[in-house]
Amino acid sequence: MRNLTLLTDFYELTMMYGYFKSGKMNDIAVFDVFFRQTGSISYSIFCGLEQVVEYIENIKFEKDDIEFLRKQGVFDEDFLHCLENFKFTGDIFAVREGTVVFPQEPLLIVRAPIFQAQLLETAILNLINHQTLIATKASKVCYEAGNASVLEFGLRRAQGPDAGIYGARAAIVGGCVSTSNVLAGKNFDVPVGGTHAHSWVMSFESELKAFETYAELYPDNCLLLVDTYDTLKSGVPNAIKVFKKLREKGHKPVGIRIDSGDLAYLTVKARKMLDEAGFKDAKIFASGDIDERIIDTLKDQKACIDSWGIGTKLITSFDNPSLGGVYKLAGIYEKGKLIPKLKKSDTAAKITNPGLKKIYRIYDKNTDMAIADLITLFDEKIDETKTLTIFHPEETWKQITIDNFYVKELMVQVYKKGKLVYNLPTLKEIVAFSKADKETFWDEYKRRVNPQIYKVDLSKKLFNLKSSLLKK
Amino acid sequence: MRNLTLLTDFYELTMMYGYFKSGKMNDIAVFDVFFRQTGSISYSIFCGLEQVVEYIENIKFEKDDIEFLRKQGVFDEDFLHCLENFKFTGDIFAVREGTVVFPQEPLLIVRAPIFQAQLLETAILNLINHQTLIATKASKVCYEAGNASVLEFGLRRAQGPDAGIYGARAAIVGGCVSTSNVLAGKNFDVPVGGTHAHSWVMSFESELKAFETYAELYPDNCLLLVDTYDTLKSGVPNAIKVFKKLREKGHKPVGIRIDSGDLAYLTVKARKMLDEAGFKDAKIFASGDIDERIIDTLKDQKACIDSWGIGTKLITSFDNPSLGGVYKLAGIYEKGKLIPKLKKSDTAAKITNPGLKKIYRIYDKNTDMAIADLITLFDEKIDETKTLTIFHPEETWKQITIDNFYVKELMVQVYKKGKLVYNLPTLKEIVAFSKADKETFWDEYKRRVNPQIYKVDLSKKLFNLKSSLLKK
Repeated sequence: MRNLTLLTDFYELTMMYGYFKSGKMNDIAVFDVFFRQTGSISYSIFCGLEQVVEYIENIKFEKDDIEFLRKQGVFDEDFLHCLENFKFTGDIFAVREGTVVFPQEPLLIVRAPIFQAQLLETAILNLINHQTLIATKASKVCYEAGNASVLEFGLRRAQGPDAGIYGARAAIVGGCVSTSNVLAGKNFDVPVGGTHAHSWVMSFESELKAFETYAELYPDNCLLLVDTYDTLKSGVPNAIKVFKKLREKGHKPVGIRIDSGDLAYLTVKARKMLDEAGFKDAKIFASGDIDERIIDTLKDQKACIDSWGIGTKLITSFDNPSLGGVYKLAGIYEKGKLIPKLKKSDTAAKITNPGLKKIYRIYDKNTDMAIADLITLFDEKIDETKTLTIFHPEETWKQITIDNFYVKELMVQVYKKGKLVYNLPTLKEIVAFSKADKETFWDEYKRRVNPQIYKVDLSKKLFNLKSSLLKK
Repeated sequence: MRNLTLLTDFYELTMMYGYFKSGKMNDIAVFDVFFRQTGSISYSIFCGLEQVVEYIENIKFEKDDIEFLRKQGVFDEDFLHCLENFKFTGDIFAVREGTVVFPQEPLLIVRAPIFQAQLLETAILNLINHQTLIATKASKVCYEAGNASVLEFGLRRAQGPDAGIYGARAAIVGGCVSTSNVLAGKNFDVPVGGTHAHSWVMSFESELKAFETYAELYPDNCLLLVDTYDTLKSGVPNAIKVFKKLREKGHKPVGIRIDSGDLAYLTVKARKMLDEAGFKDAKIFASGDIDERIIDTLKDQKACIDSWGIGTKLITSFDNPSLGGVYKLAGIYEKGKLIPKLKKSDTAAKITNPGLKKIYRIYDKNTDMAIADLITLFDEKIDETKTLTIFHPEETWKQITIDNFYVKELMVQVYKKGKLVYNLPTLKEIVAFSKADKETFWDEYKRRVNPQIYKVDLSKKLFNLKSSLLKK
């Protein structure tokens, strides 16, 4: 495990020093991680909690870390000594990985001495922002692909090794069936996939020879890349020749991959050629700068594609490469009582929600489908036996009354007084949980173009608290 | 040092197995790393070579790596045993980090047994693609900022820890003066910076109290964030109060930071208030979703900004989050003789350049400014005493004849028969080199809007080789 203790913004340390010197270091603060509505966000898939836990478990200021901080010339020895003994002693609440989440919802809450909570800010945001971004993108790509499988292979275009490794993890959480990234496969026990590149074909005296050699090595795993020279005149005919030989020997070829050119035209033609040669089961894999929008248009054009290999556009979330999650102070305890805090803004949506909170998701009892999320104060309970009226947090005249419902809490306690109290699920469990969670949302919320906006409201108590603080 | 041996696409391993089984594993191949012209690319800043070297130096298939590969069920024991003894024995040539580079130029060349060269592909692309992308973005931001300094603080929005750490490194190479990222500061010995957040202000009973406390702690380093409540009515007046006290005690305040709102309006007003209070030297730092385009418009509006803090837009290269560099086979040796290889495409710019190559940069003897780059075959020399005629590689009627010039080679040998033969420069040396290198380019090539396209031509010999292979 890597020690990422110094993976923090320097201002966290200057503030920690400030809290240390002004006698406030042990004041218990509550910080919320959440993201705001931006253009392309409808729902998101929460991801990265396991890495947050790993990070916290490994926090330790080593001698050379302290030495580096000493060299900055702004901290005193008492403070540096205090860092040497740094240990997280607070509480963390978080949404489960794989959960469908929405803007403004607290996804992770840190309640800890402000000295500690401040250190954690940057790394938590880094890990959650990244993986939630990629899991969300993957989910949207997979939704558009429908029954076709989606393979992640963006490592070479990822923003550094971790972006490839954790990006692959997040892509699996979002719904991809495999990754090309061997290290991610090993670290997270997920399927790895991949066959050969253009260079394999070019390294032989002919495409046919390259295909034959490959088929001999992988007779039951034979997926051939057919666009090195000429897809329809050379690649597919050569693949069919090789497939026929495989068939004679009792093997079943996997199929072909096309990585360039007009995928609508080429896949239809290739499908026809494969079918006519009796390879109706041979699959067509498509790759090359694909995203959910291109999947959508290719499907409209009746392209014959069974599997999508998605690289750059997924691993970088190309059209929106940052989630923009923030870590905002929601309250500070004074003499054991929480004093809620709120950050004002001229933009209503940028005003933060004060206090220690939780999220209830409301489900329709008849359909088991999600109706709305309600952010409440931490000690609020919802009476499922009565009707419930909820209202839009800004346009308060937008109200609905719900009956015949039940609720689930979205957050679990991860740390209690510095102790990990949450059993981290395996990646397979997260994938299954996320799939089931998405199925409780109507397609209207998940579609690519103009999705319906899912209701995320505040409880009356929280709304009133916010209003009263705003008036101050 | 981390072992990133498995940081590779699975198809590299299936191909390696193929070369191993078909008796081709020791064929010496030449692979070029280069990127193609895309919308927003004019020049780029090559970056990431040091991490490529670290990666190669640490390649070792560990027992658990082998076990993971064994579990895939497609490789035999001879192959796995061969991996256990994997050692890079080839040559690598590369452009120096910090060099101004252009599309189509070979930035890094691997000449090695194809078995080895194939393994290295993915990690090399990952590292070079990422850091070159961010160094380039930083360079463009810094160019627009002119004399104002640019501070990198995107860690919380970076795509994972490495994107933050290596992204900070690349940002410094591109021209940023500091980073907020403490770990990057420690790892690469670069200046770290940062002061306090909104939460610092909110944790005190008043903004003034928060500022006073901060000023007491950092009397000679006092930079105050003034937009927590109301920039002009509260933040700046409170900062001025605190600055006056500092002045009385003989300290000089650094200045203020504004992170939201109309930066054009607010910075002009704040400047006036600071000046009138006698703080003409106090600097104004601006941050909040800034990129080079916004710097440009704010400068047009005469915003008074001395320093720019750039986060999300820089650390993710938001408007173009992937460089798209590729690793293409350029030739294979047969009986000691290089057989050049070329990948065809319907798009002229996507046809690769065959053979083992180098790059000469041509400088004007009178001005020491760069005129053009010439990609040649490896053994070509350029006679500086004669005139030189170069021509566009596609529109060949575009010719220029140059005299009174000198040339420099852009590439150095990094590995020779598996041995590191290049003395890696320090980051400070890279920064200085890059700054000097950029100064040899006229502003016309560096401007943001409609930059002049810099000439990157092929030598006649290389052009002829390419043409003859294309005709085959």
